[in-house]
Amino acid sequence: MSTQKNAQFNVVGERLPRYDGADKVTGKAIFGPDVALPGMLHGFVLRSPHAHARLRSINTSRAEALQGVYAVVTAADLPPAGSTDHRYARDNTFASDKVLYVGHAVAAVAARTQALAEEAARLIEVEYEVLPAVTDVLAAMQDDAPILHEDMRTHSLAGRGEKPSNVASHFQQLKGDPAHGFAEADVIVERECHTATVHQGYIESHAAVATWSDDGVLTVYTTTQGSFAVRDHIVWLLDLPMSQVRVVPTEVGGAFGGKNTSYVDVAAALLARKARRPVKITMPRPDVFLATGPSSGAIFRVKMGAKRDGHITAVQAELFYEAGAYPGSPVGSGATVMFGPYAIPNGQVDGYDVVTNGPRVSSYRAPGGTPGNFAVETLVDELAEKLGMDPIEFRLLNHAHEGDERVDGGTHGSIGGIEVLKAAQACEHYRAPLTGPNQGHGVAHAFWGNWGGRSSCTLSVNGDGSMNLVTSSVDLSGTRTTIAMQAAEALELPPERIRPSVGDTDNTGYADVSAGSRTTYATGIAAIQAAEDVIAQMRARAAALWDVPVENVAYANGVFSAASDLRFTFAELAEQVTGSGGSVSSMANIDAAEWGAGFSTQIADVEVDPETGKVTLLRYTVVQDVGQAVNPTMVEGQMQGGATQGIGWALYEGYAYNEKGQMLNANFLDYKIPTALDVPMIETVIVEVPYPKHPFGVRGVGEPPILPPPAAIANAIYRATGVRPDRLPMTPAHLLEKMGVIGDW
Amino acid sequence: MSTQKNAQFNVVGERLPRYDGADKVTGKAIFGPDVALPGMLHGFVLRSPHAHARLRSINTSRAEALQGVYAVVTAADLPPAGSTDHRYARDNTFASDKVLYVGHAVAAVAARTQALAEEAARLIEVEYEVLPAVTDVLAAMQDDAPILHEDMRTHSLAGRGEKPSNVASHFQQLKGDPAHGFAEADVIVERECHTATVHQGYIESHAAVATWSDDGVLTVYTTTQGSFAVRDHIVWLLDLPMSQVRVVPTEVGGAFGGKNTSYVDVAAALLARKARRPVKITMPRPDVFLATGPSSGAIFRVKMGAKRDGHITAVQAELFYEAGAYPGSPVGSGATVMFGPYAIPNGQVDGYDVVTNGPRVSSYRAPGGTPGNFAVETLVDELAEKLGMDPIEFRLLNHAHEGDERVDGGTHGSIGGIEVLKAAQACEHYRAPLTGPNQGHGVAHAFWGNWGGRSSCTLSVNGDGSMNLVTSSVDLSGTRTTIAMQAAEALELPPERIRPSVGDTDNTGYADVSAGSRTTYATGIAAIQAAEDVIAQMRARAAALWDVPVENVAYANGVFSAASDLRFTFAELAEQVTGSGGSVSSMANIDAAEWGAGFSTQIADVEVDPETGKVTLLRYTVVQDVGQAVNPTMVEGQMQGGATQGIGWALYEGYAYNEKGQMLNANFLDYKIPTALDVPMIETVIVEVPYPKHPFGVRGVGEPPILPPPAAIANAIYRATGVRPDRLPMTPAHLLEKMGVIGDW
Repeated sequence: MSTQKNAQFNVVGERLPRYDGADKVTGKAIFGPDVALPGMLHGFVLRSPHAHARLRSINTSRAEALQGVYAVVTAADLPPAGSTDHRYARDNTFASDKVLYVGHAVAAVAARTQALAEEAARLIEVEYEVLPAVTDVLAAMQDDAPILHEDMRTHSLAGRGEKPSNVASHFQQLKGDPAHGFAEADVIVERECHTATVHQGYIESHAAVATWSDDGVLTVYTTTQGSFAVRDHIVWLLDLPMSQVRVVPTEVGGAFGGKNTSYVDVAAALLARKARRPVKITMPRPDVFLATGPSSGAIFRVKMGAKRDGHITAVQAELFYEAGAYPGSPVGSGATVMFGPYAIPNGQVDGYDVVTNGPRVSSYRAPGGTPGNFAVETLVDELAEKLGMDPIEFRLLNHAHEGDERVDGGTHGSIGGIEVLKAAQACEHYRAPLTGPNQGHGVAHAFWGNWGGRSSCTLSVNGDGSMNLVTSSVDLSGTRTTIAMQAAEALELPPERIRPSVGDTDNTGYADVSAGSRTTYATGIAAIQAAEDVIAQMRARAAALWDVPVENVAYANGVFSAASDLRFTFAELAEQVTGSGGSVSSMANIDAAEWGAGFSTQIADVEVDPETGKVTLLRYTVVQDVGQAVNPTMVEGQMQGGATQGIGWALYEGYAYNEKGQMLNANFLDYKIPTALDVPMIETVIVEVPYPKHPFGVRGVGEPPILPPPAAIANAIYRATGVRPDRLPMTPAHLLEKMGVIGDW
Repeated sequence: MSTQKNAQFNVVGERLPRYDGADKVTGKAIFGPDVALPGMLHGFVLRSPHAHARLRSINTSRAEALQGVYAVVTAADLPPAGSTDHRYARDNTFASDKVLYVGHAVAAVAARTQALAEEAARLIEVEYEVLPAVTDVLAAMQDDAPILHEDMRTHSLAGRGEKPSNVASHFQQLKGDPAHGFAEADVIVERECHTATVHQGYIESHAAVATWSDDGVLTVYTTTQGSFAVRDHIVWLLDLPMSQVRVVPTEVGGAFGGKNTSYVDVAAALLARKARRPVKITMPRPDVFLATGPSSGAIFRVKMGAKRDGHITAVQAELFYEAGAYPGSPVGSGATVMFGPYAIPNGQVDGYDVVTNGPRVSSYRAPGGTPGNFAVETLVDELAEKLGMDPIEFRLLNHAHEGDERVDGGTHGSIGGIEVLKAAQACEHYRAPLTGPNQGHGVAHAFWGNWGGRSSCTLSVNGDGSMNLVTSSVDLSGTRTTIAMQAAEALELPPERIRPSVGDTDNTGYADVSAGSRTTYATGIAAIQAAEDVIAQMRARAAALWDVPVENVAYANGVFSAASDLRFTFAELAEQVTGSGGSVSSMANIDAAEWGAGFSTQIADVEVDPETGKVTLLRYTVVQDVGQAVNPTMVEGQMQGGATQGIGWALYEGYAYNEKGQMLNANFLDYKIPTALDVPMIETVIVEVPYPKHPFGVRGVGEPPILPPPAAIANAIYRATGVRPDRLPMTPAHLLEKMGVIGDW
């Protein structure tokens, strides 16, 4: 779908191709696993076959003796830990006393070839005392559950628990008087939902090449969402000054939150230091599933009540999020997101962060939000049905407005949720009739907060008027282009004048990870500031050349002018200023403390095969408020990509464990992600409710579209089959069970 | 020799080791020829065997047909030339209509291996029409000389000449009334001197690796003194936007002016574009002699007159500088330098820039100055002798002061030449008696203007208070360290807090080449400005955190403070400011329009074997004004290295040509540069006359010490033998001829 271009902009709103498009298409772009340095060794990480075991001993001598092996490292090569958090990060790099999941790193080898490194790793003798494992959240909360961390006590408002527990923390959000609210309700719905652990499923594996100078400077080439995040992680674990670590980010072949965290960088650095040669580690695909950070499987108990007139009176929810081996699940953001779209007078949410014998979870696009949205939006659908209301009308009636306080205690700023719902209501798909039996039509709506954060942008003017723009924000999804477009807009110059690139931690200002849908928003602000500063500097230089007061120098449409006859095009002045007096460049560092939230409404048409339980997506539409689309083609790509990943959550994806805590589907054959054959061409409706605190009205785009698919599809399945799924993924087996075709699966 | 540390400084004046020292010593540092990219091809340049020939045809088809050959390029692959200068640069990349020197590039090949590229180059069929060649300056000026450029006319004050000529230009400097001045003189000395073409003799050959993105971005890794100079050269010859070319400078293994110019970068870029793969070209050593830019051989006719009281009354000089194949010899700076030290009322200097069938000359440490100093300072010695004066007393009597106008029309600023001469006079060596026969003691004095120019420095504060400093100034001779030391001084912090590095053209502001003894001076000023801006930003952030006016925030010795109880160390505030509000960094771009000149006096003791003419250097002292030594160890290294290269000019180095214009000694066996066996441990006396316009008083250091050695040694030889050499190098043959032992050599 096209969007109407905003006439106030010259560049913003154009469907420009990516600056880096050709290289990505032809395969020339250098991704993490492509990096090669002369004399480079290959690293391999030995990982635990046990989900829970005490490490009795590690003997590396046979591996070290193998010809062609240059270094073997274990936890003993890491400096001692300080805080508990530090210990968790250290132990997740190399296990010290216990292994806590299958795939937990135990040692690493650097050798002349990959095959030799793997052979050497097999020669490492590790003595394990195998312990009982627990991979299910509710089982992990039982009194007799195997305890992962003997010193862990539940942290809650009540203080620190007394007994060892796998519940790392418990929080409670309370608004109004939920008991009173439920008493007022005419209709109450409730359900328990279970969702699976899912992986971000990026195609590019984690890879890092580390090399040390003999002056003690470590350089790491790595695929990451944040070069500074990796730098700070390495500095933390290796106890180095920040200035001594240079992280060079490569192109990123998919990340989706999973590359906010560092996995192989420290191991590569330790091996390279010991081997005195560059060392590369590329994670094999099974290791990516087993030992990086998937998103939490979670369990929800949700209850909602509404009056006959449609107003929601109270909500209540318990959220149990699996954290994997160390605490830190996104249960908090799950809680924030679930009820976020609605104005709810009374509510209580209890969240639990629970450690289990799985890989430590990490961020995944709108972390924690997708399962929470599923839990709530299927109940919202049910409420609307019980009240005899159109599901969008019901949502509009209860929708939050700017200034409304949420159940999580936050307050909505400028939001476009109502506009999104109305656009969904108005779109042809919402009214389009279904065409056959076993078909259903579903809708779901979602709120996501987005993020601002710290960004940096350097803009340098060349003597021919062309410019180089460097950010420290790793380019995910074409942000080089959307950032440069904003700079071009602010400069009132064509975007081809600017060549954007991504710098490294030595030569750029600090930036937070490219995550939280923040990059086009926040780094865009930095680019605009740098552009405005460049114009100011150029005006001052023109004033000096013309010997007029700077306030008499005007700039518009690429031309500096003063009085009637003084005129420089940008390129003419660029030649002057770079020729003498020092060149013009600007480095803007910002911290965007405010940002605009996003909303997405999605419409799904499904057909469910009553005999096999197979769900076919017939048609799918994503409606979303993006504030101002900088590049509508890329915005649509985000909406389609996010929805496709949400469809993966909904129908296909999930970690399968056996009773020993071993993952059964750690590969892309058995762990199914949606492909082009599974998803129809996703239709998009861009809604633009400008965010007033961004110069061009931009809001984050990337995360909101992943939230609604499970609920939209579940609601469509209900209309096709009469049953309401309560489990993700909604596999044929689950649906057949719900439909009474088969028994407990 | 040690210098007294200036008590006003904490860091400046310390003998700190280089930040990059260990890597240079252990071989880990990446120099130009070390760069390797995956899939890289190897390039080889086919060069003319003739000194002068018309190019009839080039047939590359057999080379292109060879398996493993990916690209062959010639001048036909270059865009057409615009200006005459452009045509010269284009033709010096690949000859189009004529070859003008042995080694002139004709074509280039990229192939899978170096051997294959060389084999393919031999298959290129080039048809030459050989023309008579001229390699001697005076011969090239004859009316019947072979003409290199049919369209060349002599450019002079009188306008453009009418006839084709090899004299590209003629200038005249005139001060006072030279005829009157000579008439006033009691003593007049004159001499014609001939000096040889010499090479900078850097150990690292030129090497470049070029690679193109499919988005049209060219990246070139190259060994150069100026990444932006290479970028601009490529942009000029390939007609690209500046923003599309990224030049990444490598470590430099010697340059001395010879890497101000680009030789293989464009050829590598053309090959890489055609081959669609990275291409590396490393120049073989003979090609470096034949086809890069040595320094001009020159001929001088100099006359000087003085009164009985010792005052110089008039000077006159003619300078004939060989430019090689295209105009641009350093005859102008030769003229400026020769008489620069002295207050001379009347003078005339005529300079000629003459093309010859040799490689186009380029800069070499104090370009054009060393032979000019030889021509004048041997005459100065002779004048002093004839007047019966001590040679230093004679120079002191005639020395210029601040505000004096020179013969070249320039005016001296703050100079320390007299202090240098007095320091030389005071040093023990100047009075030390000689110990045997055939020994002599000589002294010479020199002026060099130095340079300022454009520089850029970025300083970024990390969360732990460490800092990264990035400059676009390529590090020659340890300038990373001397620049970081100045930043540390301005920051009032220990230098180990800063890690300096050299950026590329994408991520740094513009800088002129690291040349003209400008880097520590001008880039140091940029670093000080960046440091001062960082302090100002940090003060503002402290003021905001403390809620006090910024003018109440003091900074001293690494501590910010306000009122009695408000205090942050730099690192504490760094943690605060990088944690929120945006990080602190500063990018300073400067253009140093003024700078301080340098003077060096040198003292040589020699012994000349009367039978063989061999000159042995017994003792050697360099006295020099450096303004303020930032790092005395490195300053001494510059003084010793410069003097050693001057000793090469004096005694050993020179291109030898046969009558066909073929160089006979294009290798380090036959072209002798001084080694540790040829040079005594050079003593140094650092004189510090602060340059008032640099915050710490710094002056350029690198170039002045190369100037005096030929004259100092010639003057010593005269005292040892009674003959005054008038030719460089002062080979045994030349001295035996002068001494009457052998006839014309």
